[in-house]
Amino acid sequence: MLEEAVILAAVTVLGVLEQAYFSLQVIYARRKYSVSPPATVGPPEFERVFRAQANCSEYFPIFVTVLWTSGLFFSQGVSSLCGLIYLYGRFRYFHGYAESAQGRLAPLYLSARVLWVLIGLSSLGVFLAFCRVYLNLDLLYGLGSA
Amino acid sequence: MLEEAVILAAVTVLGVLEQAYFSLQVIYARRKYSVSPPATVGPPEFERVFRAQANCSEYFPIFVTVLWTSGLFFSQGVSSLCGLIYLYGRFRYFHGYAESAQGRLAPLYLSARVLWVLIGLSSLGVFLAFCRVYLNLDLLYGLGSA
Amino acid sequence: MLEEAVILAAVTVLGVLEQAYFSLQVIYARRKYSVSPPATVGPPEFERVFRAQANCSEYFPIFVTVLWTSGLFFSQGVSSLCGLIYLYGRFRYFHGYAESAQGRLAPLYLSARVLWVLIGLSSLGVFLAFCRVYLNLDLLYGLGSA
Ligand SMILES: N[C@@H](CCC(=O)N[C@@H](CS)C(=O)NCC(=O)O)C(=O)O
Ligand SMILES: N[C@@H](CCC(=O)N[C@@H](CS)C(=O)NCC(=O)O)C(=O)O
Ligand SMILES: N[C@@H](CCC(=O)N[C@@H](CS)C(=O)NCC(=O)O)C(=O)O
Repeated sequence: MLEEAVILAAVTVLGVLEQAYFSLQVIYARRKYSVSPPATVGPPEFERVFRAQANCSEYFPIFVTVLWTSGLFFSQGVSSLCGLIYLYGRFRYFHGYAESAQGRLAPLYLSARVLWVLIGLSSLGVFLAFCRVYLNLDLLYGLGSA
Repeated sequence: MLEEAVILAAVTVLGVLEQAYFSLQVIYARRKYSVSPPATVGPPEFERVFRAQANCSEYFPIFVTVLWTSGLFFSQGVSSLCGLIYLYGRFRYFHGYAESAQGRLAPLYLSARVLWVLIGLSSLGVFLAFCRVYLNLDLLYGLGSA
Repeated sequence: MLEEAVILAAVTVLGVLEQAYFSLQVIYARRKYSVSPPATVGPPEFERVFRAQANCSEYFPIFVTVLWTSGLFFSQGVSSLCGLIYLYGRFRYFHGYAESAQGRLAPLYLSARVLWVLIGLSSLGVFLAFCRVYLNLDLLYGLGSA
C-alpha cells in the first residue's frame, strides 16, 4: 500500500511545510505590528496576514482529504500534480492577500478550481471502486486502478 | 484495503462537499452584508453564518479522523451510517445557526452525540485490535473485524 | 496494515479526546464569562481560553497528518511516542494560555519542537520509501521499514 502512496505522502509533507511557513509569517507579523495574543485585531496589514493563514488552515484538512481519496481511488500521479498546483496557488494566495485583499482573488480562483478537480476525481474514483466492489462491474478496465 | 474503505470514502467526499457548500454560503453572506475580507465582524446575521462555517470547519478534521478509525478498526457500515447522521446534523446546525443562535443548539446536540458514538467505536475498535495484535487475544470472534 | 497502525490509531483517538476536552472548556468559559455565540470577544480570560482552543484546533490536522506519515513511512513506535509528547505539550499549552498569554510560550516551544521532529521523520521516511520504490535502492536495510 505504501508504494501506491509515496508521492501523495511527499505532497502532503510539502503541504505541512507550507502551513508551518504561514504560521511563522503570522508570528513575525504579530511582532512587527505589536499584536500580542490573544488579540487577533490590529492594523489591516496584520489582519490580512492573520486571515490568509486562517483561511489556508481552514482548507488544509479538506485539501489533504481529497488529495488522498482521489490519489488512492483514482490516480496517484494526477492527484499529486493537482496537489502541487494547489499548494502553489495557496502560496500565491497568502502573499497576494498579505499585500491587499484584492491580491488574494486570482490565486484563490486557481486553488478553488484545483480543489474542485480533486473533488471530482475523488467522486469518480470512489464511484468506480463502488461499482467494482459491490456491483462487480469494472467500468474502466485498468484505468480505474491506475 | 480500498474495498474495506469505499463507503467511508464516499461519506468523506460528501463531507467535503458539505464544507464547500458552507464556504460558498459565507462568500454570499459577505456580499449580501458587505463584509469584505479581512473583516470578520458585521451584522449579527453575517456573524452567525461566519461562525457556523468556522465551527463546522473546526470539527471537520475530528469528524474525518474518527469516521476512519472507527470504520477501519470497528465497522465500515456502522461508522458510515453515523457519518451520514453527523453530516445531516451539521447541515441543520449551519442553517439553524444562520437563523438564530438558539437555532444551532438542537442540531449541535445531535451531531455532538454522534461524534461521541464514533469516538466510542474508535476506542473500542482500537482496543480490540490492540488485544489481537499485541496480546494475541481475539475478544470478539469475527465481530472485531466486521 | 491495521497491525502496523494500531498504536498510531490509539494516539489519534487520544488527540481527539483532548480536542473534545478543549471544546468543552470553551463552552464552560462562554457560560462563566457570558459570551454568547456568535460573539468571540469578551474579557481577556475568555479570549485566552477561546484562542487556546482555536490554536490547538488549527494545528490538529497538521499533527494527525505528520503522526501518520512518519508512523507509516518511518516508525510507528517513535512517532507514537512523539505524538504523546505533543499531546502533553498541547495540554500544558492550553492551561498555560488560559492562565496568561506568557504561560503559553514554554509548552508552545515543546510542542512546536516535537512537530518539527515528526515533520523530519516524515520527510526521511518518505524519502527512503521513494528510493526503495522508484530507484530500487534500500538505503537503510530493515531500519527503513522498522
Ligand atoms: N493563528 C496563530 C498562528 C501562529 C501561532 O501558532 N502563534 C503562536 C505563537 S505567537 C500562538 O501561541 N498564537 C496564539 C493564538 O493563536 O492565539 C496566531 O494567530 O498566532
Ligand atoms: N472563512 C472564509 C470562508 C469563505 C472563503 O474561503 N472566502 C474566500 C473568498 S471571500 C476568502 O478569501 N476569504 C478571506 C478570509 O477568509 O479571510 C471567509 O471568511 O471568507
Ligand atoms: N469554537 C467553539 C468551541 C466550542 C463549541 O463547539 N461550542 C458550540 C456550543 S456553545 C457552538 O455552537 N459554538 C458556536 C461557535 O463556535 O460560534 C466556540 O467558540 O464555541
